[in-house]
Amino acid sequence: MIDTSTIEAAQTLRADYDALGAHLDRRGIDIAGIKNKVAAYGNAVPSWGVGTGGTRFARFPGAGEPRRIFDKLDECGLIHQLTAATPSVSLHISWDSAALADLLSKGEAVVLSFDALNSNTFQDQSDQAHGYKFGSLSHTDAATRTQAVEHNLACIELGRQIGSKALTIWVGDGSNFSGQSHFTRAFERYLDSAQSIYAGLPDDWRLFTEHKLYEPANYSTIVQDWGTNCLIAKELGVRDFCLVDLGHHAPNANIEMIVARLIQFGKLGGFHFNDSKYGDDDLDTGSIDPYRLFLVFNELVDAADTPGFDPAHMLDQSHNVTDPIEKRHGGSARPCAGAARGSCGAVRVLGQQRCVDGLQHTKAGV
Amino acid sequence: MIDTSTIEAAQTLRADYDALGAHLDRRGIDIAGIKNKVAAYGNAVPSWGVGTGGTRFARFPGAGEPRRIFDKLDECGLIHQLTAATPSVSLHISWDSAALADLLSKGEAVVLSFDALNSNTFQDQSDQAHGYKFGSLSHTDAATRTQAVEHNLACIELGRQIGSKALTIWVGDGSNFSGQSHFTRAFERYLDSAQSIYAGLPDDWRLFTEHKLYEPANYSTIVQDWGTNCLIAKELGVRDFCLVDLGHHAPNANIEMIVARLIQFGKLGGFHFNDSKYGDDDLDTGSIDPYRLFLVFNELVDAADTPGFDPAHMLDQSHNVTDPIEKRHGGSARPCAGAARGSCGAVRVLGQQRCVDGLQHTKAGV
Amino acid sequence: MIDTSTIEAAQTLRADYDALGAHLDRRGIDIAGIKNKVAAYGNAVPSWGVGTGGTRFARFPGAGEPRRIFDKLDECGLIHQLTAATPSVSLHISWDSAALADLLSKGEAVVLSFDALNSNTFQDQSDQAHGYKFGSLSHTDAATRTQAVEHNLACIELGRQIGSKALTIWVGDGSNFSGQSHFTRAFERYLDSAQSIYAGLPDDWRLFTEHKLYEPANYSTIVQDWGTNCLIAKELGVRDFCLVDLGHHAPNANIEMIVARLIQFGKLGGFHFNDSKYGDDDLDTGSIDPYRLFLVFNELVDAADTPGFDPAHMLDQSHNVTDPIEKRHGGSARPCAGAARGSCGAVRVLGQQRCVDGLQHTKAGV
Amino acid sequence: MIDTSTIEAAQTLRADYDALGAHLDRRGIDIAGIKNKVAAYGNAVPSWGVGTGGTRFARFPGAGEPRRIFDKLDECGLIHQLTAATPSVSLHISWDSAALADLLSKGEAVVLSFDALNSNTFQDQSDQAHGYKFGSLSHTDAATRTQAVEHNLACIELGRQIGSKALTIWVGDGSNFSGQSHFTRAFERYLDSAQSIYAGLPDDWRLFTEHKLYEPANYSTIVQDWGTNCLIAKELGVRDFCLVDLGHHAPNANIEMIVARLIQFGKLGGFHFNDSKYGDDDLDTGSIDPYRLFLVFNELVDAADTPGFDPAHMLDQSHNVTDPIEKRHGGSARPCAGAARGSCGAVRVLGQQRCVDGLQHTKAGV
Repeated sequence: MIDTSTIEAAQTLRADYDALGAHLDRRGIDIAGIKNKVAAYGNAVPSWGVGTGGTRFARFPGAGEPRRIFDKLDECGLIHQLTAATPSVSLHISWDSAALADLLSKGEAVVLSFDALNSNTFQDQSDQAHGYKFGSLSHTDAATRTQAVEHNLACIELGRQIGSKALTIWVGDGSNFSGQSHFTRAFERYLDSAQSIYAGLPDDWRLFTEHKLYEPANYSTIVQDWGTNCLIAKELGVRDFCLVDLGHHAPNANIEMIVARLIQFGKLGGFHFNDSKYGDDDLDTGSIDPYRLFLVFNELVDAADTPGFDPAHMLDQSHNVTDPIEKRHGGSARPCAGAARGSCGAVRVLGQQRCVDGLQHTKAGV
Repeated sequence: MIDTSTIEAAQTLRADYDALGAHLDRRGIDIAGIKNKVAAYGNAVPSWGVGTGGTRFARFPGAGEPRRIFDKLDECGLIHQLTAATPSVSLHISWDSAALADLLSKGEAVVLSFDALNSNTFQDQSDQAHGYKFGSLSHTDAATRTQAVEHNLACIELGRQIGSKALTIWVGDGSNFSGQSHFTRAFERYLDSAQSIYAGLPDDWRLFTEHKLYEPANYSTIVQDWGTNCLIAKELGVRDFCLVDLGHHAPNANIEMIVARLIQFGKLGGFHFNDSKYGDDDLDTGSIDPYRLFLVFNELVDAADTPGFDPAHMLDQSHNVTDPIEKRHGGSARPCAGAARGSCGAVRVLGQQRCVDGLQHTKAGV
Repeated sequence: MIDTSTIEAAQTLRADYDALGAHLDRRGIDIAGIKNKVAAYGNAVPSWGVGTGGTRFARFPGAGEPRRIFDKLDECGLIHQLTAATPSVSLHISWDSAALADLLSKGEAVVLSFDALNSNTFQDQSDQAHGYKFGSLSHTDAATRTQAVEHNLACIELGRQIGSKALTIWVGDGSNFSGQSHFTRAFERYLDSAQSIYAGLPDDWRLFTEHKLYEPANYSTIVQDWGTNCLIAKELGVRDFCLVDLGHHAPNANIEMIVARLIQFGKLGGFHFNDSKYGDDDLDTGSIDPYRLFLVFNELVDAADTPGFDPAHMLDQSHNVTDPIEKRHGGSARPCAGAARGSCGAVRVLGQQRCVDGLQHTKAGV
Repeated sequence: MIDTSTIEAAQTLRADYDALGAHLDRRGIDIAGIKNKVAAYGNAVPSWGVGTGGTRFARFPGAGEPRRIFDKLDECGLIHQLTAATPSVSLHISWDSAALADLLSKGEAVVLSFDALNSNTFQDQSDQAHGYKFGSLSHTDAATRTQAVEHNLACIELGRQIGSKALTIWVGDGSNFSGQSHFTRAFERYLDSAQSIYAGLPDDWRLFTEHKLYEPANYSTIVQDWGTNCLIAKELGVRDFCLVDLGHHAPNANIEMIVARLIQFGKLGGFHFNDSKYGDDDLDTGSIDPYRLFLVFNELVDAADTPGFDPAHMLDQSHNVTDPIEKRHGGSARPCAGAARGSCGAVRVLGQQRCVDGLQHTKAGV
C-alpha cells in the first residue's frame, strides 16, 4: 500500500513541517513541544456520528451505512486507526443497547474505550410505559419522571460495567407555547429528578448536563442556556458539570466567554464540538467560524495547568449530505479532530503571544 | 346538542359583541362593516397540517391520526364546518397523490375547493430515478433537474384538473459547507429550471416561489431571502410572485416591511402563516409575537384596494405537541384563523386611526 | 380647563370602563380588584429620561429641553401629576450632582421620592484622575479601580442622605477585540471591586447589578448576560440582585424565562423597562413586542405573593425622535407606564386563566 | 533609522516568505503571481477613519487627534506611505469642506487621490434651513427633500473638481415606531429623490447606495437590506450600484451569498470593510470572523475576470479604544488592509483548489 505517491506526500509533509518548525523557532517556540501536546489530545466519537444524519424534512442515507452498534464500533475503530485522535466512543442508550459481554469484547477488538454514556428521554421507545411527548425529567406526572430517572440510573449501571466515567444528560423538555409550561415548577421538577440521578452516581464519575436554546421545544427549553446550566451544577454538587455544545447558543453569543466563566467557577464539563451558522446546525467543527473555535481553545489552553481541569471532548456533528465513504473512513476526523488539533496547536503558539499582543492593542486593557 | 351552556355562551358572546360595537361606535367605526370583512376572509388549510408534526429528534403521534389524503380531507372539511374560515385545501404532491375522480368527489363531499398545489423535490420518492440529496432544480446534473421540472409540470396538470389556480415551489437546495456549491452557477441553474416550469403555467395561473433562510441546508439556501425571491419573480415574469412564510427570515428582520416592499413592486403572492421565536419553528400563527402579525395585516389592509391585489393565505403550522383532537376539531383554526381574523378586524379598526396616531407620534414623520 | 370635550372624553372612558367591567364580570373577575392593583403600581422615572436621546450618528434636540437636574425634576414631577404612576425619580451621578439641601427641597416641592442611585464609570468626568477608556471596576490599574469604587461609595452616601435604598451599577467595561482582555482575570477584578462597594452598602439597601450583551464594548462585555449577573449576585451576598433591562439580551432570548429563573433563585432585583427590535434600542416599553412585556408581567404576577418579593421598576427609554413636548408632558408615561399598567391588568385577568388554558393546550404539560 | 533589529526583522520576513513560496510551489502555485495581485490591491481610507470613534455612551479621545481635514489628509498620507495599500481617501461632506484649491494641493502633497464622495443628510448642520430629524431624501416635506437632493448634487460638483468618480449615499431615514412612517409612501419619496440625484451624475460616475438593517432608526430603515438596495439599483439605472457594508446585516445572514447575488445581477458597487459580532460594531476588518472575510473575497476573486467588474473598496472602521498612535501610524492599516491582503492572497491560493475540494466534499454538489 505504500506506493510512490504516499512517499512523495510524506516528503512534502516533512518539508512543510520543517518550514513551520523553522518559522516557530525564529519566534522562539519549540515545535516538538507543540507536537507532543497535539499528539496527546483526543476526542471521543459518538456512536451516532458514523451514520447519515437528517432533518425533519428528509434523510438521504448513504450506501452501506452501519445500522447496529457493532457496525458502528467498527467504523469508530477505523477512524481512530486512521487518525490516532479518537481513542474512545460515546454510546447512546437505548440506541446502542446490546449484551454486555458483546460490547466489552467488541470494544477490545476495535481498541476503543467507552467515554460518557448518553441517556435518551427525548424519544419514546416501544417498550416504555410512559410517553415523553410532554417532558421527561420535568414532566408533571411523577411516574413519567421516575421512569426517566430510572433510565438514567440504568445507563450509569451499564457505564459502570463497560468502564465509562460520566453520564451526559440532555432532555428535550420544554414548551411550544407560552402558558403550556410553568417555568419555575417545571424547573423544580427537573432539579428534583436530576438530584435523584446524581445520588446514583459512583464516586469517581461526573455528571454532564447540557444546555440548548431551543429545538425540539420551540418556545422554551428547560435548560436553555449556560446560566441555567450553571445553576443546576451548583445545586447538584461538585461532580456535576456543564457540557457546552457549540451550536446550542443564541445568535451572537460570545461562546468563548461562556467557556471562560464556566472554567473560572469550576463548572466546565466538556464539549460537543460542531459548528453552526443559524441554529443547531451540527455542521463540521470549525467549518463555519474557525476563528471562534480557536478562541474557545485559547481558553482551554489558558486553563490547562489548573489543578483538576479535565474537560471531556466529543465530536457531535450531523453528516446530512457529505459522502458517507469519505466521512466514515477518516473524513469526519479530518474537519473535526483535524480542526481541533490545528486549533490546539495554534493556541499553544499564540497563547504565548497573548500578553504581548494584548499590550500592543491596548497598552492598559489586558 | 344545543344545551343550556351553549345558550349561555351565545348570550355572553352577544353581550361582548354589543359592548365592542358600542365602543367602536363611540370612535365612529361601524362594527357591521368590520364583521363583513372578517366574514369574507378565508385561509387555505394544507393537507399536511392535520397530522402531528415532528422534529429531527422525535415525533409523538396522537391517537387516530389521519394518514391518507381522504382522511385528511375529512379533517379539513370539519375544520371549515366549525370555523367557516378555511374553505379550501392545499395539496402536497406526491404525499397526496390519488385517483383524480376520487379527489374530485371527495372535495365535493367535504365542500372544499383546492388551493395552490405544492410540489416536493426535497425528498426522494421510492419510484424516482434521480436523488435530490444534492439538489433538485439547481442540481449540477441535467437529468435530475429535468426530473424535478417534470414533477412540477405534473403538479400543474393535476391542479388544472381539480381546479387549482397556482403552484407553490419550495426546494431544499443549498449547501452545508462553503465551497460545496458555487452560488452563482447554482442559481443560474435554478432560474433555468424555474423558467421551464413557468413556461408550462396556464394563462390564469400564478406561480409562487418561496424563500427560506436555512434548513434543511445549513450553510446556504438557494432562495435564502426576499431579495433573491424578488429577483426570481422579476426574471420569470408577471405571473410569478413571492410567497412569504413568516418563519423563514433572519432574526430581527422587519417582516412587515418586506411585505410592504413586495406589495409596492407587485410581487406579493401570499403567505404561509405561522409564528417563530428562534428558527423556522412553525408554531401557531400569532402565538409568539401577535403584534408582528397585526403589523403584517396592517400592510395588507393598507393595500386592499390596489387593483389586482389578491394574495393567497395559507396556514402552515406544525403541531408537534398540541392535542390532536383539539387541534383537528377546530383547535388549529382557533389560534390560526382566529388570530388572523382578529388581526384583520383590528387592522381595519386601527387602520383608520393610522394617520392620526402617526401625526401624534411625530408631527412630521408619516 | 375642564371644557366640554374633557367632559365628553370622561363619559366615553366611563362607558368603556363599564363595558370592560361587565365583560370581566361575565368571566367571574372583579374589575375593582384589578383597578386597585393597577393603582398601586408605580414606576420610577430616570432623570435622564426627560431629555432627548441620541445615537452615535446624531442627536436632534427639541426646543426647551430641561438641561439641569432641577429642570428635570420639574418635568418628572409633572409626569407624575398627570399619570399618578411615577412617584419616584432615579438620579444619575455625576450628571445630577447638586447641593444636598437643594435636591431635598426640590424633591419635596415636586412631590417625588428618590429611587435607586445610578453611578457612572462609563464616561470620563473632567475632574477625575484616571480615565475609564479601558475599563473601570475591572481595569488592570488598581488606582483606576479604586477611583471607580470610591465613586460608587460616594453615590451610596448621597443616596443615604436623600432617602434612596438602592444603588444600580452598570459599567461599560469589556473589549473590542479578542485578546484585548483576559476574561477571567478581568472578571476577578470586577468581583473584587464590586465586593468593596457591597461592603459599603447600608443594611437596608440593595445593590442592583445590570447585565448587557454588548455596547459600548463590541466584542465582550464584563457582565454580558444573566448567567454572569447571577454569579455576581451569588458571590456578593444576599443584598445583591440582578437588574433586567429588557433590551440587553441576545436575539431570540426568552426574557420571561430569565425573569422566572431569577425569581426562583431569589435574585431578581428589578427592571429597566423599554423595548427593542435589533440591539439595545431603548424604544418605548411594549412598542415592539407588547406580548413579550405581557409575558414578563405574567411572571411577576405569578410571584407577587412570594415573601420578600419586591422588584424595582424603572422606565429606561431613549426618546430620539418623538416630540419633546408630548413626551415630557405625559407622553413618555403613556406608552410606558400605560403599557405596564395595561399589562399588569391583563396579567391579573389572564393569570387566573393560566392553569385552564394550559390544560386546554396540552392536557399534560402544565 | 535602519538599525540592527530592522535588518533582523527583514531577514526573518524573507525566510518566512521563502518558506511559504516553497510550500506553494509544492502545491503548484507561483508565489510571485500572488504577490503581484496583492500589490495591485488598494483600499480607500475614509477621512473620518483617522479619528477616535465613539458610542452614544462616551467617546475617549486620544492625544493629538487630527481635527480638521488637512490634519486628516496628513494621517491618511502617512498610512499609505507605510502600507502602500491605501492610495486614496474618501471625503465626507460637509465634515471635510474646505477651499477647493487647498484640497487639491494638499491631496497632491500627500500623494493621495480622492475616492468616492460621501454626502451627509443624517445630521443637521448649523447653516441648513430644514432639519433631518424625521428624514431627508424620504421626508414628507418637499422642501426638506429638495435640500437633501441639492446637498448631494453639491457633493457631485465638488467631487468633479477633485477627481472623484463616485458618490456614496447613506441616509438615516426610517422610524422608531410602527405607524410613524408609511413604508411604501416613504420609499416612493426616497426613489424620487434618488432619481433626481442620479440625473445629476456625470456620465463616467457611479452612484453607490448603501443599505443598513437599523441604527439610527431602530424600528425600520428605508434601505434596510440588499433586497431593497437592489430594487433601488434596478429602478435608478445602470450606473447605480449597491454598496455592501459588512456590518449592516441581520444576524446569521450569509453575506458572501449576497455579494455573489449582486455580482450575478451586475449590481455590486463595492464595500465598506469592517467586522461585527453584534450590531453595526465597525470593528477592524476580519477581527471577529476572518473566515467570513475570506469567503467574501472568494466571491470577488471568482468574479475578477468578469468584464466591467470593478468594485470599490473602502475601510470603514471605528476605533473607539485602540491606541491612536498605533492606529494612525500604520495600525489601522495592519488589521484592515493587512487582513484584506491576506485574504486576497489566500483566496487566490485556495480559489484554484475550489473545484477539487468541492468534489471531495460532495461528489455531485458543486
